[in-house]
Amino acid sequence: MTSTDSPADRLVRSQGVTAPLGFRAAGLAAGIKKSGKPDLALVFNEGPEYAAAGVFTRNKVKAAPVLWSQQVLSGGHVRAVILNSGGANACTGPGGFQDTHATAEELAKALSNWGTETGAGEIAVCSTGLIGDRLPMDKLLPAVSEIVHEMGGGLSGGTDAAHAIMTTDTVPKEAAFHHRAKWNVGGMAKGAGMLAPSLATMLVVLTTDAVATSAQLDIALRRATRLTFDRLDVDGSCSTNDTVLLLANGASAVAPTQQELDAAVLAVCDDLAAQLMADAEGVTKRVLVTVTGAVSEDEALIGARVVARDSLVKTALFGSDPNWGRVLAAIGIAPIELDPDRISVSFNGNPVCVNGVGAPGAREVDLSGADIQVLVDLGLGEGSATIRTTDLSHGYVEENSAYSS
Amino acid sequence: MTSTDSPADRLVRSQGVTAPLGFRAAGLAAGIKKSGKPDLALVFNEGPEYAAAGVFTRNKVKAAPVLWSQQVLSGGHVRAVILNSGGANACTGPGGFQDTHATAEELAKALSNWGTETGAGEIAVCSTGLIGDRLPMDKLLPAVSEIVHEMGGGLSGGTDAAHAIMTTDTVPKEAAFHHRAKWNVGGMAKGAGMLAPSLATMLVVLTTDAVATSAQLDIALRRATRLTFDRLDVDGSCSTNDTVLLLANGASAVAPTQQELDAAVLAVCDDLAAQLMADAEGVTKRVLVTVTGAVSEDEALIGARVVARDSLVKTALFGSDPNWGRVLAAIGIAPIELDPDRISVSFNGNPVCVNGVGAPGAREVDLSGADIQVLVDLGLGEGSATIRTTDLSHGYVEENSAYSS
Repeated sequence: MTSTDSPADRLVRSQGVTAPLGFRAAGLAAGIKKSGKPDLALVFNEGPEYAAAGVFTRNKVKAAPVLWSQQVLSGGHVRAVILNSGGANACTGPGGFQDTHATAEELAKALSNWGTETGAGEIAVCSTGLIGDRLPMDKLLPAVSEIVHEMGGGLSGGTDAAHAIMTTDTVPKEAAFHHRAKWNVGGMAKGAGMLAPSLATMLVVLTTDAVATSAQLDIALRRATRLTFDRLDVDGSCSTNDTVLLLANGASAVAPTQQELDAAVLAVCDDLAAQLMADAEGVTKRVLVTVTGAVSEDEALIGARVVARDSLVKTALFGSDPNWGRVLAAIGIAPIELDPDRISVSFNGNPVCVNGVGAPGAREVDLSGADIQVLVDLGLGEGSATIRTTDLSHGYVEENSAYSS
Repeated sequence: MTSTDSPADRLVRSQGVTAPLGFRAAGLAAGIKKSGKPDLALVFNEGPEYAAAGVFTRNKVKAAPVLWSQQVLSGGHVRAVILNSGGANACTGPGGFQDTHATAEELAKALSNWGTETGAGEIAVCSTGLIGDRLPMDKLLPAVSEIVHEMGGGLSGGTDAAHAIMTTDTVPKEAAFHHRAKWNVGGMAKGAGMLAPSLATMLVVLTTDAVATSAQLDIALRRATRLTFDRLDVDGSCSTNDTVLLLANGASAVAPTQQELDAAVLAVCDDLAAQLMADAEGVTKRVLVTVTGAVSEDEALIGARVVARDSLVKTALFGSDPNWGRVLAAIGIAPIELDPDRISVSFNGNPVCVNGVGAPGAREVDLSGADIQVLVDLGLGEGSATIRTTDLSHGYVEENSAYSS
């Protein structure tokens, strides 16, 4: 899905939120995680503009930092994002919300002392980790002051930040898009479990030095998340903390068209979504489930999601088992229009079911590789959509039966 | 939920479809399963009446025997049910439907030769096993003739039949309800995976010697399945072959009231559903998820099902981990009315979350036993419902990644 308008456009994974001009970032170990690993990240916009847009979890149970950041983003103006791993600050009541507020206040004070007059209302806060526990504010607040002094303008600050937001992620996720007209979009992401629709559970911060209004950013961001993070579904679970933010400072002095901005943001989101899939909890297979021939794109998406979430399909793929009947059984319960006698399925391009009946050799299709494409053609219309998912493995069960203990 | 009107009513598990008067059954190994285990079962109604009702999978992809049996049941008249394991006969096209038809014809001929004039249209057919392969008719048809001669009037015939419909089940499931007024309901069930809503994927045959019309049976059956099999959800997957049949022959000459019939059928279905949960694939925990305080029973059911299907909740329970935040995250995406600040959760009666915030000692609740009750009180209204489910274990992954191989 990566879009490039000319050979001079480049997408790279070695750079993240500090790839665009005028952004600083840092990551450090505040002591929130008992492991002593990095758990606090900062992304700071040096200006001259502070336009921003955000999309948040659709879970009705929202973490304190989501409630806070939704308020901040409603103004379309963000100077900095402070992110912690090691605790979701969800289901923590009014005290948890006060902790988020205090974190923003502390950062505003530190940035002001550092020379950038900032108010708490210009600071977005993100948290990730176990639901239900209060954050250790005695450790967090001093580290918030400290991290301001750690901010670097180079690329390493961005990578440090990407490390500090990891939970069960095994690798940091960064991507940057360099437009030939000398403006850039960068991003970082975390997310390995509780990855599902309406934003695969994740924290993502995107930055750009393009000149763009909050309204333009909002269009670009919603369009990109709809096609990328919203179509990543590892385990059907949607977190309380999902947040994707896009900050723009205009430092490049280049004002791309909406279409150019859309394409660049989509390219970075698409790459980050692929990285999230590849590092999902317990993943042994990277799976693309595509439904074509639906009566609409919406119906194709519903169908692809139902197949991608089906435990029996996912365990079969873990076993490299071309058990296509489970795909038929799964799509058959999708609340969409379909004719059982017109459904055809292929695995990695090999037909396994044609018009509702098994194809010769279907049981012998080799699915032993790490990448599996499941294509379901409903044979009804022009609607198509793809969901990125993973298999359901022993590793997933192991990791998730021992997360909080 | 077992209902008994007086001490003289009895529910037992040592008897099944032949517990009522005037039913014969048998099970044998036809050679459909490569293992050589029993794979063909027959339930035969000796009359004098042949009333019947059935409910079937809501999956749009329906196996050939489902399409056949729906036609048969539309007449409300069934003399016999022939069931095979070792193959679902689903996604097998017109040829698969012809196989089902030929099976019914063969049994009709054999029963007629045996002395009971029978037409194929009076015979229901059920199949279970792998989706997508044709049945070995060269083995099945001779066995259909043979099984008529194996039918016994005693209880062992019912138990043989219950054995012959097993797939990944580890134990046969039977139950019988003896009413003090000397009429009876018996039943057998199979089902271990692909167990989900709109009939937990299963084959169930229920018999009664009560005098009852097809319309009365239909009422009793729909009421019972709504409260039992429809509320069993092991893995969210709904099969192509779900069938629950209820046959009545009036042999007791007792005509119970609708209410009495409802209660007896419910008692047997409830017990069989509990047996299915206890023997589900990979089960290490028997889990009851109850939602109370919803604005309606329907909303409570939706909420309970969402929690019961959540992979992160299920893996936590496998790990005996009282990670209640996952319950909050799960209920938060249910498409029902809720107020995050009024949700309370308890595990086995121990409060772990009160009004959306963790309760003291929540992380120390002991879930090491095999039975776990998850109670979610939404604090909004009077609606409540319970879903039976299981944990998501290594055993589930193992069993389902190697099923067809």
